[in-house]
Amino acid sequence: MNRKLIEKFIENMKCLHSHVQEHNHPHLLLLQIGNTFCKLPGGRLKPGENEIEGLKRKLCSKLAVNSPSFPQNWQIGECVAVWWRPNFETVMYPYCPPHITKPKECKKLFLVHLSEREYFAVPRNLKLLAVPLFELYDNVQRYGPVISTIPQQLSRFQFNMVS
Amino acid sequence: MNRKLIEKFIENMKCLHSHVQEHNHPHLLLLQIGNTFCKLPGGRLKPGENEIEGLKRKLCSKLAVNSPSFPQNWQIGECVAVWWRPNFETVMYPYCPPHITKPKECKKLFLVHLSEREYFAVPRNLKLLAVPLFELYDNVQRYGPVISTIPQQLSRFQFNMVS
Repeated sequence: MNRKLIEKFIENMKCLHSHVQEHNHPHLLLLQIGNTFCKLPGGRLKPGENEIEGLKRKLCSKLAVNSPSFPQNWQIGECVAVWWRPNFETVMYPYCPPHITKPKECKKLFLVHLSEREYFAVPRNLKLLAVPLFELYDNVQRYGPVISTIPQQLSRFQFNMVS
Repeated sequence: MNRKLIEKFIENMKCLHSHVQEHNHPHLLLLQIGNTFCKLPGGRLKPGENEIEGLKRKLCSKLAVNSPSFPQNWQIGECVAVWWRPNFETVMYPYCPPHITKPKECKKLFLVHLSEREYFAVPRNLKLLAVPLFELYDNVQRYGPVISTIPQQLSRFQFNMVS
């Protein structure tokens, strides 16, 4: 077994917006690489690949248990953010800057709806973290500009917590 | 006439999300008070007032020409953000912090759909600005935490510009 099985209780949200919950506060699932760097589960699309199918493929390769006892049914929800990388530099913007006609990369963030109880398996070199929104907010130093503004992008949703 | 009439050409957006455009880049309408402080058009609800009706009332009092020649039909669109003020301090959060059961204030931001051509009148002590998203982004010093993250909250929309 080169995969570590973890079990999490996931909130069941009326409006189909799911996040891990604790202290009645929404949490975000992040993958930690090494001791500091965190990233969202996901990855790059293959040429011509549909973005929803590609995201499901990446979620399976990054988080799925891959066992018939733990069937995974990723429900991809609303788009919460779109980021643009105009050129070969790594800096991204939440809009395509004026006069940029061929941006190098477009990164889309989606809500993923989970069932009330969900099982994940994570590659040995990664660590799955459930990070509360209050830890991400205003913390660009730790999480970078994309992840640290997710609380603002999720603020329009009303999360229904499972008691 | 204690009101200054200004005329703006407004983009007509397919998905009904309207902002002033220039250089094919979305702009945000802000009211400037004095030389530095900017705020979004809007205000406080009366006790028991519906939030959409209250926003229309505030838009009328802040931006409407109030003349039969310039009929105003505010179309309030999607909620883009919700901010919470937990106590008597002015600091706000894009979530209701844990253990806060009675927050002092909740501020909601909505898209307002404008027609292709729109007329505004602004009280003499205010100045109406059309600020591009790239000027707001990452500019918390000038615009504060609420307005400076509007570009991230609008990033999920695709704006169709009028050529």
